[in-house]
Parts: sequence; C-alpha cells; structure tokens
Amino acid sequence: MLKAAQILGWSSGLTIISQRLTKTRNSSSSTISLKLSAFSSSSRRILSFIPTRMSSSLPGSDPLPNSPTFVSVQSSGDVRKIKFCQWCGGPTKHEIPDGEEKLRAICTHCGNIAYQNPKMVVGCLIVHEEKVLLCKRNIQPSHGLWTLPAGYLEVGESAAEGAMRETWEEAGATVDVISPFAQLDIPLIGQTYVIFLARLKNLDFAPGPESLECRLFGLDEIPFDSLAFSSIYVTLNLEDLKKGKVKFHYGTINKRPGSSPSDIRAFTLDYHLQP
Amino acid sequence: MLKAAQILGWSSGLTIISQRLTKTRNSSSSTISLKLSAFSSSSRRILSFIPTRMSSSLPGSDPLPNSPTFVSVQSSGDVRKIKFCQWCGGPTKHEIPDGEEKLRAICTHCGNIAYQNPKMVVGCLIVHEEKVLLCKRNIQPSHGLWTLPAGYLEVGESAAEGAMRETWEEAGATVDVISPFAQLDIPLIGQTYVIFLARLKNLDFAPGPESLECRLFGLDEIPFDSLAFSSIYVTLNLEDLKKGKVKFHYGTINKRPGSSPSDIRAFTLDYHLQP
Repeated sequence: MLKAAQILGWSSGLTIISQRLTKTRNSSSSTISLKLSAFSSSSRRILSFIPTRMSSSLPGSDPLPNSPTFVSVQSSGDVRKIKFCQWCGGPTKHEIPDGEEKLRAICTHCGNIAYQNPKMVVGCLIVHEEKVLLCKRNIQPSHGLWTLPAGYLEVGESAAEGAMRETWEEAGATVDVISPFAQLDIPLIGQTYVIFLARLKNLDFAPGPESLECRLFGLDEIPFDSLAFSSIYVTLNLEDLKKGKVKFHYGTINKRPGSSPSDIRAFTLDYHLQP
Repeated sequence: MLKAAQILGWSSGLTIISQRLTKTRNSSSSTISLKLSAFSSSSRRILSFIPTRMSSSLPGSDPLPNSPTFVSVQSSGDVRKIKFCQWCGGPTKHEIPDGEEKLRAICTHCGNIAYQNPKMVVGCLIVHEEKVLLCKRNIQPSHGLWTLPAGYLEVGESAAEGAMRETWEEAGATVDVISPFAQLDIPLIGQTYVIFLARLKNLDFAPGPESLECRLFGLDEIPFDSLAFSSIYVTLNLEDLKKGKVKFHYGTINKRPGSSPSDIRAFTLDYHLQP
C-alpha cells in the first residue's frame, strides 16, 4: 500500500481550487495530502488538448518531480472477448472500421459493430446532521468495506433517479436529491462516478441484500482505511464537506498501472475542475 | 411541432433557480418559456424518491395544469434484440435474473448476462468573444442542422478528454477545457450529455468529415430553429451564457412520448439542479 498518495488539485479558469488536507490515520499513520501541485509559471491550470489519440500520457499531466509517473492507460475494453454478434450470432472480426480509430468487434455476417462505452455509476452522498451515510458491502468486490450507496445507471432512468434507486436498494433509505456533487471519471476501467448530494427524508434506513450494515459517520469518523473504492475515497475527501459550502467537482481518477485493485490510494486525481 | 414547449426549471435546496426567457423566433414565432413552475406551497423543490421502480411518471414531476402530460418512459433498451451471447455465441433467454428487477438477455449456455447501460455523449461549449462555435452536421441523424461538437465517450478516456477529441474531430479545433458546464440526462434514449465550457487555443478551426461547416455565432445569432438535438437546444438556452457567470447545471430531458425525434422542442427539462 502507498504510504502517501499525491492527489493533484487543478484550478479552473473560473475558480482557483486550493485545498490542503493533512490527516493522520489512526491505524496506518499514513499521510494523505490533497494539494494544489506546484506549476511552473501559473496557478491557473486548465485541461488542454493535444490532437493525437494515442498518447500514453494525459495531455497537460505533469508528473511531480521525483514522484512515480502516473499515466493514463488507454484501455481498449474487452473488445477481443466479443467473439459473436449479439443480434445474428455471427462470428466477429476485430478491426478498425473505415473512418474510425479504435479496434472494434465487427460481425462478419451482418456487419454490426459492437461499440463499448464507459458505464456510469450513480450514487448519493447523504449528509445528515454533519454525518454521512455509508454502507458496508455484502458483495464482491470489496466485501466488508465501506462505500456510498451507488451502482450502475440503467437505461430508462436519469442519473438522479438511479442514485435514489441504488440508495433505496442498498440502504433502504428514501432521500431527497439536493444537488449534483461530483463527476469522477476512471478511464482505466471505463467507469464514471456521478455523485449527488442528498438528505434523508426520515431515519428509517436499513441494509439491503447487498449491504452488511449501514451507518451514519461523523466527518471525523469516516473509516478511510476501510473504504471500498478510490472514487469513494476522493468523494469523502473533498473539502466542501467540512466547509459546508458545496460546489460541483469534476475530476479524473487515474489508477497507477500495475497497482492492486484493492489499493484504493494508488491513483492521482487529475483535472480537478469546478465551475 | 409544438408551438410552445414548457421547460420546468427546478430549484435546488442550495440555489434557487429562477429563470424566465421569452423569445420570438424570426421564422416560426414560437414562444419558448423557461420558467420556475408554480408549486403548491414552496419554491424550494428538490428531487424526491418514491420507492417503486416501475412508476411511469417521474417522482416529483407535476405536469402544469392544462398542459400536455409529459412522462418519463421506462425504456428497456433493446434487450429483446439481444439474441446471442457475445462471448460464447449461445442463444439467449429474456428473463429477470434472481435478485434483479429488470428484464435481461441471459445466455442459455454460459449464463452471461448482457447488461445495457446508458451512454455518455461528451462535448464542448466553446465560447470565444461572446460567440459560440457550432458545427453543421454532415451525418445522420439531423444532417444539415447545427450542433455543439460532441460524440460518444470511449472506454479509456475521461469525459473531458473525449469532449476535446470530438471537438478536434468535428471542428478541427484545439481547445482548453475550463469547467464542467452541464449534465443532461435523456432517459428515453439512454443517453447522458456531459458538456464542458471550453475556449479556443487559436482560431484555426475547420469542419472535419462529420461536419459541413463550423462557425462562431453571437449569442443573439444562434440558429435555434435549426439545431440538431434537444440537448443542444437546452444547453444554448441556459441563461448563464448571457449573464457571463457560469454555474454547473444538472437536468433531465424528458421527451414527449410519441413526438417526432426531429421535434427537438417536444420535451420538458425536469429536476434542473445546481450546486
């Protein structure tokens, strides 16, 4: 496990994000530092485009001196696992179609192209009297670890509806969605977390089948050493929660290639932008 | 085509959104009204959860008196079109798996479940000297109509990277992403638009293969009668652009069931929330 994870805080052209958080964890004494990284000439950093698709490093992403190099890995999804067409059952070939740039699974019978796209995970950050509601997972991955109520968005529902549904399914809680809170992309695994700030309509909550336990934690009691995912770690570390003034956060979680999926601190938070 | 489309503006618990915009279009004289709908007892409206999955109307969605009833249609995606397993080629059955609530395509050979999830469309709202960059589409749907540079997010890239890539592909423009601007869900068609505010790095832009023309339009010159999609119509109507003070917008575009896909004004904007 990393003893310290550097989380790069980017400033947008409209709002300077400057956050510093140093915590000492009871059990591991690891230091987590969220800071505005030192840029060469300007503190105003935005996300710039380099017009090439296949760069292995993120545009605008400068690894800190003497730090491990964190790069974005261009995952192709599991395109080579797609061996048959969903519609006609024909065998696929794996080629880059005319006018495109990515490898696709193309049906050799009907020509259908099986596109693969990132999935949205939607959830609620429920704040009740300066406490947040967390669920201990009763399913893999990360069985026994704590998370926000969240899950895959389904076709036919909005992100906010999906977040409320997942909250009901995992925590038995009915909530009001107050505001969008964060969008956190995880390109390596093709997921985007969309988290809404919400409040309980009442105190009747109880674990659903996918949860072992649901509990309200004070902001200083959050079990950071027993969280399930990097996205949850980032969300619960965003300073707004403590300041009580909530703004929307966009960011990209770049996992350190080769790190264990269970090492939720092996990442950088890049392109942290706020309106 | 609807002569008037009611766009419900919701207020969040943190920020009251109150916007009224009345425009007369040169060519159609249609009236577009964005207004805070009249609620029974409170102007503070948030999105509440009704713990049932199969309600045909959106929770908290009150159609205006004497207005057409706009409802959210729970699309099942095209699950019944999935007749074969992508991995092993086995025939599928269509059932609700144990512990789930939605119909899925399940492989009768290997048991793989083919999940279908909404797709993210990512794009840039490029503002340059109080003008916005639009592209005239050279592809279907909506050939010949104007849009923001936007397209499907790919696995392996962040939403901001995808938005910049689409901007490069469709408008030949290199941009700086400044800030997240809007998330607009369209449950009926399983799409979520994620739009970033961006600025040109230089004035070298030109239409790519998917565009007939790219042009900067003054905010009073936007061709609202020739826009390609409801999501673009909503994005370009958000008041921030004119006020010059940009905040993040979340909302759900509910298409009127049975309306023509080409009628981009046959929708309601529900659950308009801001941090």
